[in-house]
Amino acid sequence: MVRYKAVISYDGTLFVGFQRQSQGRSVQEELEKTLQKLNSGQPVQVHGAGRTDSGVHAYGQVVHFDLPQVRDEEKLRFGLDTQSPEDIDVISIEQVSDDFHARYNKHNKTYEFLVDIGRPKNPMMRYYATHYPYPVNVELIQEAIKDLLGEHDFTGFTAAGTSVKNKVRTITHASVEVDIKTGFLIFTFSGTGFLYKQIRNMVGTLLKIGNGRMPVSQIQAVLEARDRNLAGPTAAGNGLYLKEVIYRDSL
Amino acid sequence: MVRYKAVISYDGTLFVGFQRQSQGRSVQEELEKTLQKLNSGQPVQVHGAGRTDSGVHAYGQVVHFDLPQVRDEEKLRFGLDTQSPEDIDVISIEQVSDDFHARYNKHNKTYEFLVDIGRPKNPMMRYYATHYPYPVNVELIQEAIKDLLGEHDFTGFTAAGTSVKNKVRTITHASVEVDIKTGFLIFTFSGTGFLYKQIRNMVGTLLKIGNGRMPVSQIQAVLEARDRNLAGPTAAGNGLYLKEVIYRDSL
Repeated sequence: MVRYKAVISYDGTLFVGFQRQSQGRSVQEELEKTLQKLNSGQPVQVHGAGRTDSGVHAYGQVVHFDLPQVRDEEKLRFGLDTQSPEDIDVISIEQVSDDFHARYNKHNKTYEFLVDIGRPKNPMMRYYATHYPYPVNVELIQEAIKDLLGEHDFTGFTAAGTSVKNKVRTITHASVEVDIKTGFLIFTFSGTGFLYKQIRNMVGTLLKIGNGRMPVSQIQAVLEARDRNLAGPTAAGNGLYLKEVIYRDSL
Repeated sequence: MVRYKAVISYDGTLFVGFQRQSQGRSVQEELEKTLQKLNSGQPVQVHGAGRTDSGVHAYGQVVHFDLPQVRDEEKLRFGLDTQSPEDIDVISIEQVSDDFHARYNKHNKTYEFLVDIGRPKNPMMRYYATHYPYPVNVELIQEAIKDLLGEHDFTGFTAAGTSVKNKVRTITHASVEVDIKTGFLIFTFSGTGFLYKQIRNMVGTLLKIGNGRMPVSQIQAVLEARDRNLAGPTAAGNGLYLKEVIYRDSL
């Protein structure tokens, strides 16, 4: 078997998420359907770097899969791109060694989270940014967001009942800026891994801090207490983008 | 009766256009349905500055309508905004004099046209930009676009069979730039009025010039010959935005 790594982008609006579910349309299933066609009807299993949730978008999701023969990379990319639904695009494909695994190889992920703080909102962006119609002091968020940097136990920022045991993760980059053109807030987070709903919970908390309904010290408080009840609400998935996955070998 | 002017934005994807049609969902009809509810069930007629086509978006469409009583402007805006479908937003409402007419009062309109020249395209923008997957030399377009400025007979750039007799229009601004962040082409056109499909035909022609399949002199040739057959194809409506309408009194 020959292993291929692909970088894909997708509009998460009409998907139940990346991962195959018993009900609903998933990115994984759509890619597997197309690859089966390109593989003489034989099933192909797709593995993704991150399991994006329903409504979450990707500019740089990474997947891998195996095919029985060597293919021309650009022809394979073109076939997978044009034969997949129009809300999935295939940016690049390259052959990789058999021990490459999109999910288990060490990597750094970067996510962006877009918040439309305009009143009224931009209707063109209603599926592509989370609307927050309250006043926001960006400087307060910029001060608070620094507390997320580094290695922490993020129990307080993950969904209750998550089965993962080790909730220690490292955030290597955390920032927020105001996009000059749109006036939207753009949050950027990079790290070696994120817990279920972690980014959406961090953003929900940071927005409450920016709105003055939680103190700047709240991030520290949630981290120390490891208590989800101290954090803000979960921000909607439609603002979240998996921007880039960089594997350690290529860092 | 009291006349109100409203500035609205909408996502044109799921509309047959601004204007009411015998079949399909129009912006005008949706606004009229909401205004009827806000007007104790009495019908209200909405007039728009521009008849945007199916799939065409607006950030600054202007409409006017009459109500029997004076209303608080912000309450009226809030009611019309929140009770209209989520792909229409109401940016502002103000009371105007009885002789204001969104369409017939002299005004300047500004349109933007977004072209995704990336390969592959951005799936998040598939309804919000026209994808042009061929090489484009922006400098050639910048040279050719100047020929559109000023007063011309735009017969060669309108749809064949248009019932409007006078096809002389004035373009006061015409430019193209590359958006640094997205890499998209952004065309901007301002003028006192545009013919049916004029902007989409101008953009289709300019893209062919940028791609080297028509000479830079082609704009001049189409204007002089007044022949639609000399122009390029009609660019898809999904890249077009009605950006702003400015009335002469306020210029």
